Amino acid sequence: MSSVKIGIIGAGSAVFSLKLVSDLCKTKALWGSTVTLMDIDQSRLEGAFFLAKRFAKEVGADLNFEKTLDLDKAIIGSDFVINTAMVGGHSFLEKMREIGERHGYYRGIDTQEFNMVSDYYTLTNNGQFNYFLEIAKKIEKFSPGAWLLQAANPVFEGTTLINRYTKTKMVGFCHGHYAVDNFIKELGLDSSKVDWQVAGVNHGIWLNKFFYNGKDAYHMINTLKEKALNHKPLHPFDDQISPAAFDAYEFYGMMPIGDTVRNSSWKYHYDLDHKKQWYGEPWGGADSEIGWKWYQNKLAEVSAVTIEVAKILEQNPDLPFSKIIESAKDRLPADFFVEASNIFDPKKLSGEQHIPFIDAVKNGNSRRFIVNILNKGTIIKGISEDVAVEVPALVDAGGIKPEKLEPMLNDRILKWYLAPRIMRMEWAIDAFINKDPNMVLEILMRDRRTKSYEQAKAVVQEIFKK
Amino acid sequence: MSSVKIGIIGAGSAVFSLKLVSDLCKTKALWGSTVTLMDIDQSRLEGAFFLAKRFAKEVGADLNFEKTLDLDKAIIGSDFVINTAMVGGHSFLEKMREIGERHGYYRGIDTQEFNMVSDYYTLTNNGQFNYFLEIAKKIEKFSPGAWLLQAANPVFEGTTLINRYTKTKMVGFCHGHYAVDNFIKELGLDSSKVDWQVAGVNHGIWLNKFFYNGKDAYHMINTLKEKALNHKPLHPFDDQISPAAFDAYEFYGMMPIGDTVRNSSWKYHYDLDHKKQWYGEPWGGADSEIGWKWYQNKLAEVSAVTIEVAKILEQNPDLPFSKIIESAKDRLPADFFVEASNIFDPKKLSGEQHIPFIDAVKNGNSRRFIVNILNKGTIIKGISEDVAVEVPALVDAGGIKPEKLEPMLNDRILKWYLAPRIMRMEWAIDAFINKDPNMVLEILMRDRRTKSYEQAKAVVQEIFKK
Repeated sequence: MSSVKIGIIGAGSAVFSLKLVSDLCKTKALWGSTVTLMDIDQSRLEGAFFLAKRFAKEVGADLNFEKTLDLDKAIIGSDFVINTAMVGGHSFLEKMREIGERHGYYRGIDTQEFNMVSDYYTLTNNGQFNYFLEIAKKIEKFSPGAWLLQAANPVFEGTTLINRYTKTKMVGFCHGHYAVDNFIKELGLDSSKVDWQVAGVNHGIWLNKFFYNGKDAYHMINTLKEKALNHKPLHPFDDQISPAAFDAYEFYGMMPIGDTVRNSSWKYHYDLDHKKQWYGEPWGGADSEIGWKWYQNKLAEVSAVTIEVAKILEQNPDLPFSKIIESAKDRLPADFFVEASNIFDPKKLSGEQHIPFIDAVKNGNSRRFIVNILNKGTIIKGISEDVAVEVPALVDAGGIKPEKLEPMLNDRILKWYLAPRIMRMEWAIDAFINKDPNMVLEILMRDRRTKSYEQAKAVVQEIFKK
Repeated sequence: MSSVKIGIIGAGSAVFSLKLVSDLCKTKALWGSTVTLMDIDQSRLEGAFFLAKRFAKEVGADLNFEKTLDLDKAIIGSDFVINTAMVGGHSFLEKMREIGERHGYYRGIDTQEFNMVSDYYTLTNNGQFNYFLEIAKKIEKFSPGAWLLQAANPVFEGTTLINRYTKTKMVGFCHGHYAVDNFIKELGLDSSKVDWQVAGVNHGIWLNKFFYNGKDAYHMINTLKEKALNHKPLHPFDDQISPAAFDAYEFYGMMPIGDTVRNSSWKYHYDLDHKKQWYGEPWGGADSEIGWKWYQNKLAEVSAVTIEVAKILEQNPDLPFSKIIESAKDRLPADFFVEASNIFDPKKLSGEQHIPFIDAVKNGNSRRFIVNILNKGTIIKGISEDVAVEVPALVDAGGIKPEKLEPMLNDRILKWYLAPRIMRMEWAIDAFINKDPNMVLEILMRDRRTKSYEQAKAVVQEIFKK
């Protein structure tokens, strides 16, 4: 048993914090640890702190909690810092999108070729990039041996940026790779007999290996094409077995996984009609005006329920947490209810990789992760070593040991997908580092939605006005 | 004195052939050599052969001439093979452009970001790429020690392609770098005291060094900005001191040279109005519908005059060549007259680098060239070693020795200009090698002019129909 101090930045996101706390409660090797919840929003912080403490108490976990509005306090003395903060919140992103759309940029200027995910902002998001560096530099200064676990988007740009400009040990996490399970379930396979790899960059990962019972089983995925073409999504994010995914698979020769399905060229995204055609009715995927509204509404619902739960618990200190969730079942989105119930299941971890990662490096409980790290040692051939890649790795007390990719990602993906995506990452980082709106303007001069220099100049001026 | 055999492929271009022959006549160290003119167009070949022989005779040069319609004969026994052929001629390119424009692609589908030059076709030009490889493979087979001197466009894609897929020794030549003279003349400098370098890829080269009297003189170029902004071009190609050139200079931090000024993003090329704004009235640069028409008309005039000159000479065997040119002065385009007169000036070489290059490697008459070669040994940092770059080099009997670039090209040019240009070269080569129109379709899905998949599919189908 080895206790640590973990700082969670942006902990006001109560659901995310609860997932981490629940994972900690189920990881006895980390009991005795202290969790410092930090957020700049006091009321959200109080809510998350209350729920986290209450939850740990109810399940009888030996964990200590602190809360703070001060970033330094979340970092000083910490062994691990988890950053999940979104500077300015969704409202900032929506404001940026609104300005962009008013100037003729459908879905906003941050929506770019191979970067269509609606809250993965790389051009207008200077506050977020600044915060990434501020955190990493404070770790350098106050807790130089500590790990930074990056959950906040954009993970690709963020992981690259932090590694290039600070010495902080860091790893980026995403859960996009879980979408491989869609194939495993749909094909009725025993997941313990499936051996798979994904590789690429965050939100641009590809299934390079899919073995079943020790044999290549990629052909099994081909049998799902018919189903994909007649795809009826259950929700906007249900796109792994969609026309878009299989169309990309046909061109690239490997299957795009998770958010990668959303991150295409404009081909699937020209307008709502195209989005519906490729991602299914009625939403046209998560990034359409309809799909994204659905997601925002769901976030609002979850937030409301969380506040409600906290209130009930405050008024009824002896009521079991799990009972309240059970009683709120009818008012909760179905998948949120499943998630909320999972946190009480002693055998199920949340799926977030952070706590198992801490357990692996701290206690040597070796495990496989999908991590975002620099391409040092050329894990993926053809990508520069100072670019962050997302790859499978074994993690233990010795650190992160990337798996050998077998087979390597193919040339088609490297030249036609990763090259343009990496180029845009470089442009975004360059524009941020130079604090130069003219570089964003230049990006827009290469944007299919730009009809004139004046149009691009106007949107850049409005976005970057003092 | 060291005689060689030189094969010229596409020699029916009489003006180009005459320039080479004139250079040979002025290079006594190569007298005794044999020149094999090859073309698939018999009447053009006969014309060029007649003029070349007649010219050499008039100036008393000891050279032998052969003519052939057979590619093999131009290669077998040759020490140097110069390829200047354009498969299908300008009419093929114009047909491709016409199809593209009919489907909504202004200036045709080959016109692409950072590749706006109107006869530098990389997507529909499979015949040209096939011929590049056919020639290089025949040299491998018949004359394995011979040099291939590539003059035919696209030099960037061609040099990369030939080096990747054959073992033939080759070098690509262009004359874009001569545009540096515009600055030297405009600033009234003594060219012998100017020390400059350019580097990049063909049609994407940048002035990394501009010294005068041993000191950095880049600031002198800045004084021409006012003039550039009030640019009144003398002809469509007169664009080195233009708003476009200085706008690019401001963003990239180094001056684009020669055809590079034309090869921008769409910013300067959206439509005729934009082109006029950036390249000057009335043509809007060489690549507008007006500027390109001007160029085509000039090509036609020059061709007519050449035929006429050949006829007069045939009927008057004793009339001096130079006299006829003089008498045709009024009917010739002014700059063509200057060029035609130059070939009679015993002290002036044509400016084409081919014959001086042959003299350098054959006779050790060491000289500086701007060459297109693979980036082996990483001449330009940040570019893969299997990509062709255009750089200054010293050439002697030992071969091509690239100069050290001082300073190196800056990061801005690498990430914002060369990266996207190189990416497009990779796509074009990939589409050609795979003989897959779907890859061209995919390129069009990333094209700002594409409004729908159906539009792109229709143009690709018409272009690649059997």
